Amino acid sequence: MPHIRFQCVQCHSQCPADMTTLECSSCRSPLDVFYETPMATLDTKVSMRPLMPEPFHDSSSRITLGEGNTPVVALDKAGAILNSERLFGKLEFLNPTGSFKDRGTATLISVAVEYGVTEIVEDSSGNAGASVAAYSARAGIKAHIFAPAGAPPSKIRQIQVYGAEAHLIDGPREAATDSAVEFYKSNGLLYASHNLSPYFVEGTKSFAYEVFEQFPDGLPDHIVMPVGNGSLFIGAWKGFQELKAAGYISRIPTLHCVQAQAVRPIVDAFLDKSTTNEGQTTVAGGISVGNPPRLSQVVDIVRTSGGQALAVSEADILRWHALLSSTEGIYCEPTSAAAFAGAEALIKLGLIKKEETTLIPVTGFGLKDTTEY
Amino acid sequence: MPHIRFQCVQCHSQCPADMTTLECSSCRSPLDVFYETPMATLDTKVSMRPLMPEPFHDSSSRITLGEGNTPVVALDKAGAILNSERLFGKLEFLNPTGSFKDRGTATLISVAVEYGVTEIVEDSSGNAGASVAAYSARAGIKAHIFAPAGAPPSKIRQIQVYGAEAHLIDGPREAATDSAVEFYKSNGLLYASHNLSPYFVEGTKSFAYEVFEQFPDGLPDHIVMPVGNGSLFIGAWKGFQELKAAGYISRIPTLHCVQAQAVRPIVDAFLDKSTTNEGQTTVAGGISVGNPPRLSQVVDIVRTSGGQALAVSEADILRWHALLSSTEGIYCEPTSAAAFAGAEALIKLGLIKKEETTLIPVTGFGLKDTTEY
Repeated sequence: MPHIRFQCVQCHSQCPADMTTLECSSCRSPLDVFYETPMATLDTKVSMRPLMPEPFHDSSSRITLGEGNTPVVALDKAGAILNSERLFGKLEFLNPTGSFKDRGTATLISVAVEYGVTEIVEDSSGNAGASVAAYSARAGIKAHIFAPAGAPPSKIRQIQVYGAEAHLIDGPREAATDSAVEFYKSNGLLYASHNLSPYFVEGTKSFAYEVFEQFPDGLPDHIVMPVGNGSLFIGAWKGFQELKAAGYISRIPTLHCVQAQAVRPIVDAFLDKSTTNEGQTTVAGGISVGNPPRLSQVVDIVRTSGGQALAVSEADILRWHALLSSTEGIYCEPTSAAAFAGAEALIKLGLIKKEETTLIPVTGFGLKDTTEY
Repeated sequence: MPHIRFQCVQCHSQCPADMTTLECSSCRSPLDVFYETPMATLDTKVSMRPLMPEPFHDSSSRITLGEGNTPVVALDKAGAILNSERLFGKLEFLNPTGSFKDRGTATLISVAVEYGVTEIVEDSSGNAGASVAAYSARAGIKAHIFAPAGAPPSKIRQIQVYGAEAHLIDGPREAATDSAVEFYKSNGLLYASHNLSPYFVEGTKSFAYEVFEQFPDGLPDHIVMPVGNGSLFIGAWKGFQELKAAGYISRIPTLHCVQAQAVRPIVDAFLDKSTTNEGQTTVAGGISVGNPPRLSQVVDIVRTSGGQALAVSEADILRWHALLSSTEGIYCEPTSAAAFAGAEALIKLGLIKKEETTLIPVTGFGLKDTTEY
């Protein structure tokens, strides 16, 4: 792929892009996609619509289920509860497998098809696993998905329905990663980790391009996201950076990162505290990630954008989970509800003003996790 | 509402439009919305984009969760299996509550808000109930949903999550209708039946307008749908009729109606046979409707459009349910899979030619019915 390279998120050294390189050979940090030819600027192009750079050679290799283009809806009643006059949700759960992960997966699997990959290994708490299983089925790729045995049964069933082999691993989320790594190495397979692959994060940046088009009168002041591994958070930032560099926008929304109090490595790093949540669990399964490989990258983005990283209680997550469905008709996963609890805290702290526009991605469908709390 | 009236689907007599009239006072047949001012024709308007007539007075009363605008995706692998070179799916399950019903519900509840309705009664096998529950929550309307006690647990839970009161009724689907009718009458409430309300069917016609825009090189030759009460089937027909009358299209796709062999009142009526499926059940819960009130209307549309009504086996429904997820990455309800079994039969019969374009709406998300078959 001559038009792209990988670039280290820490030391900025570059290396050739391929499917197997997942970390910087100098400092072992994660990598991002780097375009040798940057996006056309607003000045030099004929259309007002930005053309998002993508890491394929050939658009005919694109594997798509119609991901993206999710609706933005006003959340007036939720806004009244948390004291925001301009609160909006972007319904990311209306992606083809029921979560935002499909943005990243579509790009990752499309590149895998260009490389002729036929069998992959992935580990996931559930949503990314289901997403990779679906797009792999569509691409004719055999997928091995390593997931915690304690993941919600409907997520595990979804992985299996798409024809992937679900490897259910006892123990914490990290045990599934360890088993996946052992498996791909001992079987000589490709490790398509959504947390490490630069292509996955690259796919999620379409979120920012859509927000740009969906807010023609001005971008939101704040975007508040639930963050586990941070792929949507990083992708959104990357998309806004591209739009700014090309002259489409003059400022980037302030990005806030919300985690659960029980599992808050990014929040602790942001506060320069050692992390203390070993072995704890949260109802917000999608952000129950104790050791996210792109932690420093997320912390840097929070700081650069002027945002906050903050942790919310289990009670507040469940309260917002119930409030969103009963007041707005939006049935989300507990993970998604965490961002609303976070927005409420940010408004109470005066860090988001009630007259500012706040956007929250509603990341996963409630149907995916029907655990009774 | 001066700009609309109701018109009987059989005797064509008209009456004033309101929220409580659900049948023709002359012949007791169902009603449709009739616009006193028809849609602007292509000749007389400035934009190429048709402006769909809607039955509200005031667009500010619209209750929306971003329904519609569902993606169309090519289904090359499923097409190869059923011998179609041009097979497409429209992913209706990517509506806000996971089924196409949201199109109709958004219109029904928006009109209810204009009428100042605060409490409604509905009966549903599950999907319409969840949809009405969600939009009612958003509109601040209290909803009573009568559903069969045997409906999939995740559908019943979804109804409850939105804050509606779920009334679970033992016995066949019809028992839920009977209980709903008794309840609304004895409590003086509004009966917002999605099967009877002209507004619900009116909302589903947006499907046709989207198909018109998503196939700019020519409409599909055939659309194959699973049909229970037929609201999407009738709405699509109505939308295409409007587009034709206004000069946007010159022909309407052939509409085919698929039911399960176990519950096939429309197929039997189409074949002029007495129906023989009393008390039988099907895995395709969304089309398990023994006595659809709009039966004659569906049969008339099938005949007028030159389509077929045909019934498929449980084995073929389950085979397609598995095939769609494992080959295309599309996890649907068994109800949706029935249409693929139907398309396969139509191609074998030579009624759909392999080089013709065939579109199938994938009506409900597999996450809504995780029963193991």
